[in-house]
Amino acid sequence: MPLRWAMRNLCSKTRFYRGGVTADGDLGILSMTHSYISSSCRKPPSKVFDGRESHCYHSNAFHDVRYQIHQERSSVVEEPLDPFSLVADELLILANRLQSMVVAEVPKLASAAEYFFKMGVEGKRFRPTVLLLMASALDMPIPNSTTGTVLHGIPKETRARQQCIAEITEMIHVASLLHDDVLDDADTRRGIGSLNFVMGNKLAVLAGDFLLSRACVALASLKNTEVVSLLATVVEHLVTGETMQMTPTSDQRCSMEYYLQKTFYKTASLISNSCKAIALLAGQTAEVSMFAYDYGRNLGLAHQLIDDVLDFTGTSASLGKGSLSDIRHGILTAPILYAIEEFPQLRALVDRGFDNPSEIDLALDYLGRSQGIQRTRELAAEHASLAVEAIDSFPESDDEDVRLSRRALVDLTQIVITRTK
Amino acid sequence: MPLRWAMRNLCSKTRFYRGGVTADGDLGILSMTHSYISSSCRKPPSKVFDGRESHCYHSNAFHDVRYQIHQERSSVVEEPLDPFSLVADELLILANRLQSMVVAEVPKLASAAEYFFKMGVEGKRFRPTVLLLMASALDMPIPNSTTGTVLHGIPKETRARQQCIAEITEMIHVASLLHDDVLDDADTRRGIGSLNFVMGNKLAVLAGDFLLSRACVALASLKNTEVVSLLATVVEHLVTGETMQMTPTSDQRCSMEYYLQKTFYKTASLISNSCKAIALLAGQTAEVSMFAYDYGRNLGLAHQLIDDVLDFTGTSASLGKGSLSDIRHGILTAPILYAIEEFPQLRALVDRGFDNPSEIDLALDYLGRSQGIQRTRELAAEHASLAVEAIDSFPESDDEDVRLSRRALVDLTQIVITRTK
Repeated sequence: MPLRWAMRNLCSKTRFYRGGVTADGDLGILSMTHSYISSSCRKPPSKVFDGRESHCYHSNAFHDVRYQIHQERSSVVEEPLDPFSLVADELLILANRLQSMVVAEVPKLASAAEYFFKMGVEGKRFRPTVLLLMASALDMPIPNSTTGTVLHGIPKETRARQQCIAEITEMIHVASLLHDDVLDDADTRRGIGSLNFVMGNKLAVLAGDFLLSRACVALASLKNTEVVSLLATVVEHLVTGETMQMTPTSDQRCSMEYYLQKTFYKTASLISNSCKAIALLAGQTAEVSMFAYDYGRNLGLAHQLIDDVLDFTGTSASLGKGSLSDIRHGILTAPILYAIEEFPQLRALVDRGFDNPSEIDLALDYLGRSQGIQRTRELAAEHASLAVEAIDSFPESDDEDVRLSRRALVDLTQIVITRTK
Repeated sequence: MPLRWAMRNLCSKTRFYRGGVTADGDLGILSMTHSYISSSCRKPPSKVFDGRESHCYHSNAFHDVRYQIHQERSSVVEEPLDPFSLVADELLILANRLQSMVVAEVPKLASAAEYFFKMGVEGKRFRPTVLLLMASALDMPIPNSTTGTVLHGIPKETRARQQCIAEITEMIHVASLLHDDVLDDADTRRGIGSLNFVMGNKLAVLAGDFLLSRACVALASLKNTEVVSLLATVVEHLVTGETMQMTPTSDQRCSMEYYLQKTFYKTASLISNSCKAIALLAGQTAEVSMFAYDYGRNLGLAHQLIDDVLDFTGTSASLGKGSLSDIRHGILTAPILYAIEEFPQLRALVDRGFDNPSEIDLALDYLGRSQGIQRTRELAAEHASLAVEAIDSFPESDDEDVRLSRRALVDLTQIVITRTK
């Protein structure tokens, strides 16, 4: 008997919404119109835990708090939900746990936790959201090829291990941001003074190392060598991507293939391999695990392509309204690479560097006359479609929780390619 | 049938020496007087590999090259050997492999490899030396409690896995040096311009991350969750040690207990846990593995205590001839902590910081009148004795290779506490 929703009968009055997306909404990544989901099961696709000991951290905290939240939610009527809110309870606890871990165990790194927390507030819990939804989307009967029996639903401790992957992923992600800040001599990240600017390189390097080391320890606690290998490879990819970006040759810098490979290493490898780890921990087959990987890979690439567009446009649709941080750092992204294809003379400008602001203006002029932005959006949409295909390739399931989670993952692909910040 | 020395019959003309140590030699850590070992077995305590595939890197390279080296060595008469030279062949290949890995896979980090290599030349292959000797010291019959049988010698692929631990340990060590350089704003390390000074923080952070990520991948390839956990904990300890050093309270800064705990995290955790990993991979019992751990822990602590003495004395025995880098950075080490016990008025001086060079001179004056240096040396000697005790606790073995390796490990404890640089 699988572990099903303990609160199933309590939440029948709660309405759930599917996120239809507005491309020019002003509420950021979470901005959506909401349409009612005709669903016989109106409950969030997450689990209630019992008190059994977990292999990773103190997962029992999840149980108690989430139980209370579910009970409270059962009395709330017509609260709109979106893909993020489906796992909001778990996310909040995850974020708080990560923050208190840093604050409690290494008080000197409290400012790093603060930084971390602020990024969370600003919608940077994208990865854990995807991973928890993926866990729910793959919570289905698994045929055991050895015994010929069918395991209904994932064992209850599996969800705790999947949550651990979400935590590890967030730790690796933030660690890489901290170290990237040192690398880039960045003075701001998303409007917050970057940690290395405020506290010096010392603390940024150390906080990143601390998060990486905690990620390693948490990973080791899962005692699954394949999962350890997947996430270790991610850390290597993050470094490889950064080095690819640092000093490419002129040809590499103007190569779309090189750009996409670098983008995979720097952005998509983490979410794709983590999605695969979620599937492996659920006991899914290699084939299903690869579909999970494909989803993460394509979602990650789409996400970065839109990031690259927004670096030029910002929240408006106008060129030059973004931070232009990439081009100012001499980093060429998809829009400019497409523009070079249309206007080869842009290549010479690019090769001279952009030391002079007027050269950036000239490059923007070429970009505006090209299809660069449009083609980048189309490429992002293609990857979003491939991500949806991956979800559609999952084994069929009649379970409403599973279907709702998959729909949320599909909705996320649209949120990613239509967001305006 | 265990894998024994394939070259046993070829090396009967080679003389091996035991390293007696001179405390004031001018050749550094490798400076030793040599006395002839009356041994019926005159061969280095290392293995010849067959061509089987290894789980970690391309271990076959070890086989081919070492086979040639052994053949050549068989014709060399009266070549003096010391603990380092017993595993010199393996060490050289290890260092070259690490360097070429960095150069080949991330050309941008070639300067990091160069830095790495230079440190190797300067005697910084201390850790791999200990680990390979430990592997040989534990190459003995292992009773199998399940089957009641006795396994004679470690399987041939085990040595490759132990070499992998030596590589991982060196990668973690160098990664921590690179990041420490950023942390400390160090402009030199051992006379070489530190990487972050020469190339900027970017490359130092990235090179450290690269080495850490490769260490994680190599670790995962060993597919031993206990070993993964041990080494992951080490990375965490390195960070914890660094944070303990960064901003201690005044009381913590003057506490010998705090100092020793920090020293364990920053220095001894790596070698102790790696020694334990070597034992675990050899299939040794928990008890024997703990003796290996104890050896590493005490050797590491002794090593750091002497480092702390040399920071005051340098190659001479006179105070103030060292680099004084610790005290200049406001870091209090054992000699000063002992001096404070004798001269409580030194505490007030210490609490004021050492912004003024004359205050450092005053502190050195107190130190000179105290037993600080002498007591630190005695504490190092105590830890060296404990390390020897750990080796003596290993199960008895009649195997000459094993006995020679154990003697080398014992000799190393003396080298560590009597070295002058």
